[in-house]
Amino acid sequence: MKDELTNSSETRLSLEDLFRKDFVLHDPDARWINDTDVVYKSEDGHVIKLNIETNATTLLLENTTFVTFKASRHSVSPDLKYVLLAYDVKQIFHYSYTASYVIYNIHTREVWELNPPEVEDSILQYAAWGVQGQQLIYIFENNIYYRPDIKSSSLRLTSSGKEGIIFNGIADWLYEEELLHSHIAHWWSPDGERLAFLMINDSLVPNMVIPRFTGALYPKGKQYPYPKAGQVNPTIKLYVVNLYGPTHTLELMPPDSFKSREYYITMVKWVSNTKTVVRWLNRPQNISILTVCETTTGACSRKYEMTSDTWLSKQNEEPVFSRDGSKFFMTVPVKQGGRGEFHHIAMFLIQSKSEQITVRHLTSGNWEVIKILAYDETTQKIYFLSTESSPRGRQLYSASTEGLLNRQCISCNFMKEQCTYFGASFSPMNQHFLLHCKGPGVPVVSLHSTENPIKYFILESNSMLKEAILKKKIVKSEIKMLHIDDYELPLQLSFPKDFTDRNQYALLLIMDEEPGGQLVTDKFHVDWDSVLVDTDNVIIARFDGRGSGFQGLKILQEIHRKLGSVEVKDQIAAVKFLLKQPYIDSKRLSIFGKGYGGYIASMILKSDEKLFKCGSVIAPIIDLKLYASAFSERYLGMPSREESMYQASSVLHNIHGLKEENILIIHGTADTKVHFQHSAELIKHLIKAGVNYTMQVYPDEGHHVSEKSKYHLYSTLLRFFSNCLKEEIPMLPQEPEEDE
Amino acid sequence: MKDELTNSSETRLSLEDLFRKDFVLHDPDARWINDTDVVYKSEDGHVIKLNIETNATTLLLENTTFVTFKASRHSVSPDLKYVLLAYDVKQIFHYSYTASYVIYNIHTREVWELNPPEVEDSILQYAAWGVQGQQLIYIFENNIYYRPDIKSSSLRLTSSGKEGIIFNGIADWLYEEELLHSHIAHWWSPDGERLAFLMINDSLVPNMVIPRFTGALYPKGKQYPYPKAGQVNPTIKLYVVNLYGPTHTLELMPPDSFKSREYYITMVKWVSNTKTVVRWLNRPQNISILTVCETTTGACSRKYEMTSDTWLSKQNEEPVFSRDGSKFFMTVPVKQGGRGEFHHIAMFLIQSKSEQITVRHLTSGNWEVIKILAYDETTQKIYFLSTESSPRGRQLYSASTEGLLNRQCISCNFMKEQCTYFGASFSPMNQHFLLHCKGPGVPVVSLHSTENPIKYFILESNSMLKEAILKKKIVKSEIKMLHIDDYELPLQLSFPKDFTDRNQYALLLIMDEEPGGQLVTDKFHVDWDSVLVDTDNVIIARFDGRGSGFQGLKILQEIHRKLGSVEVKDQIAAVKFLLKQPYIDSKRLSIFGKGYGGYIASMILKSDEKLFKCGSVIAPIIDLKLYASAFSERYLGMPSREESMYQASSVLHNIHGLKEENILIIHGTADTKVHFQHSAELIKHLIKAGVNYTMQVYPDEGHHVSEKSKYHLYSTLLRFFSNCLKEEIPMLPQEPEEDE
Repeated sequence: MKDELTNSSETRLSLEDLFRKDFVLHDPDARWINDTDVVYKSEDGHVIKLNIETNATTLLLENTTFVTFKASRHSVSPDLKYVLLAYDVKQIFHYSYTASYVIYNIHTREVWELNPPEVEDSILQYAAWGVQGQQLIYIFENNIYYRPDIKSSSLRLTSSGKEGIIFNGIADWLYEEELLHSHIAHWWSPDGERLAFLMINDSLVPNMVIPRFTGALYPKGKQYPYPKAGQVNPTIKLYVVNLYGPTHTLELMPPDSFKSREYYITMVKWVSNTKTVVRWLNRPQNISILTVCETTTGACSRKYEMTSDTWLSKQNEEPVFSRDGSKFFMTVPVKQGGRGEFHHIAMFLIQSKSEQITVRHLTSGNWEVIKILAYDETTQKIYFLSTESSPRGRQLYSASTEGLLNRQCISCNFMKEQCTYFGASFSPMNQHFLLHCKGPGVPVVSLHSTENPIKYFILESNSMLKEAILKKKIVKSEIKMLHIDDYELPLQLSFPKDFTDRNQYALLLIMDEEPGGQLVTDKFHVDWDSVLVDTDNVIIARFDGRGSGFQGLKILQEIHRKLGSVEVKDQIAAVKFLLKQPYIDSKRLSIFGKGYGGYIASMILKSDEKLFKCGSVIAPIIDLKLYASAFSERYLGMPSREESMYQASSVLHNIHGLKEENILIIHGTADTKVHFQHSAELIKHLIKAGVNYTMQVYPDEGHHVSEKSKYHLYSTLLRFFSNCLKEEIPMLPQEPEEDE
Repeated sequence: MKDELTNSSETRLSLEDLFRKDFVLHDPDARWINDTDVVYKSEDGHVIKLNIETNATTLLLENTTFVTFKASRHSVSPDLKYVLLAYDVKQIFHYSYTASYVIYNIHTREVWELNPPEVEDSILQYAAWGVQGQQLIYIFENNIYYRPDIKSSSLRLTSSGKEGIIFNGIADWLYEEELLHSHIAHWWSPDGERLAFLMINDSLVPNMVIPRFTGALYPKGKQYPYPKAGQVNPTIKLYVVNLYGPTHTLELMPPDSFKSREYYITMVKWVSNTKTVVRWLNRPQNISILTVCETTTGACSRKYEMTSDTWLSKQNEEPVFSRDGSKFFMTVPVKQGGRGEFHHIAMFLIQSKSEQITVRHLTSGNWEVIKILAYDETTQKIYFLSTESSPRGRQLYSASTEGLLNRQCISCNFMKEQCTYFGASFSPMNQHFLLHCKGPGVPVVSLHSTENPIKYFILESNSMLKEAILKKKIVKSEIKMLHIDDYELPLQLSFPKDFTDRNQYALLLIMDEEPGGQLVTDKFHVDWDSVLVDTDNVIIARFDGRGSGFQGLKILQEIHRKLGSVEVKDQIAAVKFLLKQPYIDSKRLSIFGKGYGGYIASMILKSDEKLFKCGSVIAPIIDLKLYASAFSERYLGMPSREESMYQASSVLHNIHGLKEENILIIHGTADTKVHFQHSAELIKHLIKAGVNYTMQVYPDEGHHVSEKSKYHLYSTLLRFFSNCLKEEIPMLPQEPEEDE
């Protein structure tokens, strides 16, 4: 499939390429076992232990073991003697899945099934090792079970669990998708002697029905609690159970001011063997209280309270505590002149007697601290990721917590050309760290020593992918800063490799999937849109307007009470900027978005500005009233009070605006996040308004289309945009006459 | 919108035309009240009584009355004093609907709501006048209620009714759609003193869930019993209840040979004030027993038994009895040499003492008797509709039941050019009849006297429609007889008016919706496909191959155990015939079908013969296993025994055959007849096989798309076929290169 137009050996990127084996990005899923050992999965699927000091590797699990047990997930016990293998994995929501489990002895190759007492062939909602030895926890029928070691019998830690009603240690839909961003709702104390867990009570939450269409003569739907905007939310309690001696469960109480209100718990973290730090957030999401709780007594004392005129962001952030608990580090919004607030590290010092807290700001500037990674007690240095070098990048920095707060970039010189967007994970004692280069080049995972970060070991170079990519005409990308309403906002353009501004090109504008996200980053990216650039000579544009994240809170929070309007304005402004460029063919503009992005794309298509020839939306949010409480209320408040705001923000409002568009609507009928209901209402209104559209339904598929349907989805999108964006060819005159 | 190509004032038919007021075909819904009076609805919506002898008309109900009560249906009481008006009508299945009712006094204009005792604002499943005075019956929560007159209190006649489980007097889904072809499952004795009714027990029938997507924050689906092929069927009992004096309910027992088998009841008719005739059919539908039951004792005696190697057709036919019950008329299959059996009238004479029956055949020939309408005791003439003059037409005949059986065509000379397809309804004493001319011209309803049929009165001429049609270039139609496997089968072609065989035209082949139906008839037809002929110069083809009806049983029954194969062969043969015609462009063939027709269309597209450029299917049956028991088993038997036949007949079998087609799949998600499940399974398999298709979903709509969505549906179909079938225009060379 050599390209005939150029003489180079580079070929155009095709959809088939994306599904080729050598195009798979490999994540070694590396985890620290102790300060010198990492366990990871090699490219060929073996599970390996690596000692960073000796460079010695130990094969813990052969790749064939996965085949034998039809297992698709694994985890190694803290004592490195056993592996928990999950099979028959079935996705539930975004993160959660059910599976059956076997315990595999690495040395003897013996195998046990993991089942609750008196249950066979059980399907578990969760199973994992604890933090010590062979501690094991699993969740079955919404109750938590504990095994001190693999040979012991199981202890049931809760009994209130009730399917679809009361959840222990595991999240319901709302907590998983919108609050914790994880299905795990329990946390081990460092010594493994205590477990904190949430009890989420959905008994008053209305149920949403997800129909089923295929796979049986009489397919049965399923239902699950899903609070839509303004509906009854789940109630939540936080418990701690001790695992040694007779078990005893203690509730950690919310701050007094929250006792008679609705609230969420958004973060729980152990800061010592007996203390946890907990973040409580009121339902409107504008008051948040951080407490430290003594789990032996249940007493919680408030450490920090935040309030906001808009909503509070970063509520999942885990503060980093010093070992003695006398200080902790956390990001807080810090005003930077006219550019508004940016997230920066604050050090909170707790006076041991008075419990009074003094705060010292460790960083400042027109950039954001993304994540605090570690606090090194010996050097008194703090490690963190920030956007200091570029809002599109993430670099690893250290800063002193004393004196002049001397700040150093650790990753800035590491693989400079290839890497400007990093993640990192530190070993328990902060002696070493894993550095995840996520772009713009092909991702690389490396191991470094904290003392001398320049010395490193490459764990995963994705060399196959790198080689495969090199053979392709990969797009060139360029960033332009647009000045809109006092903001400088980034517009990223991806050009075909043989781009020349003497030609005119079609354009695809891509929306972000969530508010507060970031589209214009240095992350490695090859996806279906890259194929469109390469094979159809389309320019892809991504624009982070108001409502996008990581560029200060002012830009982010502009969407408060204005969701679906400022984003639309900014995207249109970006398009108008592009229309002034000679290389853009104004007759061939298109737009794409998924979820919230589908919402914004629909709102843009509906607006008076008729800029686009076509657009595609996947699982679009159509009406915020139909979407999750914690999301919609964050931006728009309660529907009962803000009826007109909800109405104005609905795509269904003035649907006639969509009249002349060419729209492709894509939705899985079993989407548990944005219900098929949204597209159904949209279509119903489009039919009523006499608007044409194209539709693609994925029966019984969820918000994220399954692997087996991905090729179909991508080819549907590519065909749609390719047809819509192709150059109009002058026709011969004998066109058949057509009546209207 | 004058056509610019011709000089005539005729314009092309547009989709908008079909929705114009003057394009509405008006059905006066005329009913006999007695031998000289007809009640009908005039074109402007007044309900009028017409005396055929005096030509005097009486206004019973002004059209404004319907507006006042938001009523959409009406019926006049037998004593002509009251009208029952239905409002809030909501369709359930094909025929059934729920509604609320008011009783309206024609003279005083007083109004009463119709409610069961101690219920307010009730929603009823049925309500109608009886046969005498002001007798009233209604059905609520699956129980029958009776009122002797409108002022009396209601009497509950049954108490076993249970929603979705036990149905009294009203059909469940299976009986309504597949067996009775009506939702009414009760029958009045002529004197109004007795009521026969079915009790249908669905307690063991599996329920199908119909999801709901729109109209609420948390839309709830509904479920109803639907036996798929091989699943548990409803059981059925036939009761008679007397309405005068203390009510007493008696069961009419099935024939002995059916007592231990599964059976259906397909016909119940009163033949005197105390006798009913009942037809019982075994589950495989190849043994049928006609009994006459004495409703005072419950004793039934068998009068006629039919068996068949295939399945028995015409099981809803009501025999016509002489007043004394000594003879009855019914059609039976009669062999006509090598062309197999045709339905002809037989006269059954019951010897009063021995109860022995002698049979005399009254008609014969290579044509079919469609319906026996009346037996005139005085002239001893039988009136019936038949296909004697043409299989595509229906003419009204009389025949003597004595001597030479002298047969006469009554309608043959009536409006000869305009009318060759008739229906008729006789007055109670057969003195007069209503003649319904249904085509090929614009339909006309006329009143005639039996004595002198040439004298008539036009009740409805649809003059507005006639005038509107005259202004349009209406298609020319031609019939060609194709010789396939010893059969002569009719192919109807509809040509654009300016057709010339020097041009080449695209073709759309339309499938029939049900087996045993007839597509090629003289019925008046203007629909979306007419628009396609007129505006896109497409030729429409309809072909009645094996499996079609009204041309003898041999053709019909060829599909037994071969459903989905012989029909495919014949349609392909018809297309191959067409391909030999110089005026057909072989590169522009398309196909369309709905329901069973969608099934055949899919099977044709899947076949090895790649003849079609594109095809559209609406609510296609994809797998007979997923469809109704009474339908699938009729043709294929029980799935447990005929697994391989079911598998071979499935569209999903060898789905890869569909590879290169351009398919538009249309389905309402709330289709209770062909479940959305069918299209979902099809799509799922197409996605898996990597086949492209286009889809149109009508959220929460049923098998028949609602009036408000019809325009959208038609324009979707027209756009699809217009795009697919348009002439390929030679492109200029500078076509942009495209990778595969």
